Amino acid sequence: MLSEHAGEPAARRDRLALKRVTVIGTGLIGTSVALAMRRAGAEVLLIDRDPAVARLAADLGAGTPWSGESADVAVLAVPPSAVAATLLDAQERGLAAAYTDVASVKGPPLAEAARIGCDLRVFVGGHPLGGSERSGPLAARPGLFDGRPWVLCPAEAADPLVVDGVTGLVTGCGATPVVMDAAAHDKAMALVSHAPHVVSAAMAARFADAPDGMVGLTGQGARDVTRIAGGAPSLWREILAANAHPVADVIEAVADDLARAAAALRAHAGPPAPVTDLLERGVAGHDRIPVKRGAPAARLATVTVIVADRPGELALILQAAGVAGINIEDIAIEHLQGRPVGVAELSVAPESAPDLIAELRTRGWSLPDPPER
Amino acid sequence: MLSEHAGEPAARRDRLALKRVTVIGTGLIGTSVALAMRRAGAEVLLIDRDPAVARLAADLGAGTPWSGESADVAVLAVPPSAVAATLLDAQERGLAAAYTDVASVKGPPLAEAARIGCDLRVFVGGHPLGGSERSGPLAARPGLFDGRPWVLCPAEAADPLVVDGVTGLVTGCGATPVVMDAAAHDKAMALVSHAPHVVSAAMAARFADAPDGMVGLTGQGARDVTRIAGGAPSLWREILAANAHPVADVIEAVADDLARAAAALRAHAGPPAPVTDLLERGVAGHDRIPVKRGAPAARLATVTVIVADRPGELALILQAAGVAGINIEDIAIEHLQGRPVGVAELSVAPESAPDLIAELRTRGWSLPDPPER
Repeated sequence: MLSEHAGEPAARRDRLALKRVTVIGTGLIGTSVALAMRRAGAEVLLIDRDPAVARLAADLGAGTPWSGESADVAVLAVPPSAVAATLLDAQERGLAAAYTDVASVKGPPLAEAARIGCDLRVFVGGHPLGGSERSGPLAARPGLFDGRPWVLCPAEAADPLVVDGVTGLVTGCGATPVVMDAAAHDKAMALVSHAPHVVSAAMAARFADAPDGMVGLTGQGARDVTRIAGGAPSLWREILAANAHPVADVIEAVADDLARAAAALRAHAGPPAPVTDLLERGVAGHDRIPVKRGAPAARLATVTVIVADRPGELALILQAAGVAGINIEDIAIEHLQGRPVGVAELSVAPESAPDLIAELRTRGWSLPDPPER
Repeated sequence: MLSEHAGEPAARRDRLALKRVTVIGTGLIGTSVALAMRRAGAEVLLIDRDPAVARLAADLGAGTPWSGESADVAVLAVPPSAVAATLLDAQERGLAAAYTDVASVKGPPLAEAARIGCDLRVFVGGHPLGGSERSGPLAARPGLFDGRPWVLCPAEAADPLVVDGVTGLVTGCGATPVVMDAAAHDKAMALVSHAPHVVSAAMAARFADAPDGMVGLTGQGARDVTRIAGGAPSLWREILAANAHPVADVIEAVADDLARAAAALRAHAGPPAPVTDLLERGVAGHDRIPVKRGAPAARLATVTVIVADRPGELALILQAAGVAGINIEDIAIEHLQGRPVGVAELSVAPESAPDLIAELRTRGWSLPDPPER
């Protein structure tokens, strides 16, 4: 569900007093929030348990090290397990009028905060999506949240003015607020992010000890399924442990389906019913997953073209598409073994495919026969 | 293992008498083989159990309907379960001097052919990769096999001259022959193609009944893991049934890993050892999977750039990369909800990343801070 606050003008944000923001924890997300709020015109104060890290963030233009000031909103950019204790400490020191966090799991920190006596009237849990899956070389940047969903989970106790203030911070960072309760958020993340990571890892693990000759035959399909398995285990084990039960529910169901399919394949001579059933449920699930985040799922047409594997070749193709007024929604490139050419698969709206094929053929590219055959 | 026949000149193919080829079964693969061999200058004869389908292939330029001629090589482009019986029938009619097939599983048809008394001295099983995973709108085309691996599984009984002849047909179709035994082929396909499809389906199946609000939060990671789950169940259930035991071995191992991870997540408070172990094995497997098919695995650097979601914008970026002499190895596009911009992630050789970042910034694109920060 989209909040009505999406696209709020800056004037409204000022009215809600977001003039001064304190960021606690100046890692990738915290520093990006600080940079984004600086971009939005706010004064930003920086705290980190390592003062040198806070000074580094300040040197990068993210704000100034905190020295006792009280802020309108404090953003707790600390690991999920540290959210509740950090909130209690911040509230005891009177750091801000309102508080939010950016942890990728929302239920357990909220429960812990209630248990240890935090004031939940002035706290709204949050989770910016997308950016938090990236790490390392990308580093912090003010545009990290631009246009991305940012889930907010206001507890029942939350003061509506505080919810407004935190929502203003989210839109101030360029993100789109999405409101849901903490349990729904955690279940959703298990489904759309955490379980897919474990499933990808479990498939990729099968390649760890396989002979080179087999691994060398891997094509685009298996490459896609295993792509995210390259993510840092040290980061993901924390994420998974923090959302343990919702993740376990999903991967257990996946394991059950796979075990049933394996047993059916061993037991039957022909195509076994549980396998067909799983494949059909897979298509049903696939078809619901949006091509654009938040947009309704839609099938795209694929136009395949042979391209020279050299700089600039793909640009010429996309330029031709641009001239013809055709928007390329996605591109998959398959490089071809031992040859200086590749296959590019261009995803376009189905009604655009014939035009794109005609345009590219006119310009001399090698394409398959058109779909109308 | 690559065959030494890759890149064989046309003169050698002529010497091996590939002047006349009969294709049995004029579906996507059979018609594409026919078109490719016509392109290579061979006379092609067409047989299908439905004569109208063979005539259609002939009308498309794939050759002429067979009328009793004997060929140098006959290609059996029939489903795996029909290979052995089709081979016996073709040999009894003396259709060709040598025979090959294109089925995606190699062990069971070979065993069945031996059992029913086919002459295996003049048969070499084959499997063209890549093209057979596509279906529908792409349809047959002469370039379907260009630069793709085409596995050949000569049985011990096979006559070396027949192996040479079938290898010549493969290179004549533009493909790269890869020689392995039938059991190794079937295990390899289970690992690199069949099991990833089932695993993708099992993950995608979790989205079938999930609430819209959750599915709408799906990002690029889960989209990649589930992409191939959209494939036609009617096609895949046949492929899986034909390679049942090797597929069952792989998906059972994946199911075991997932079940163990789920149990560990439920049982422990902190990050449980089996989860960390699985994530680490996943990275190890991921790192072995080639970025280009057949090339050694290599990590690429990712350069992220904000692009307007409109025709031609991506072309300008790729053009800039081309001008700077930088080859884009892959592209992932993330569209942003409710906004006319998207995020493009450009994969390049790590040493090219700083140059690409500098070039794009010079031309005014919005990029994250450079990796050296």
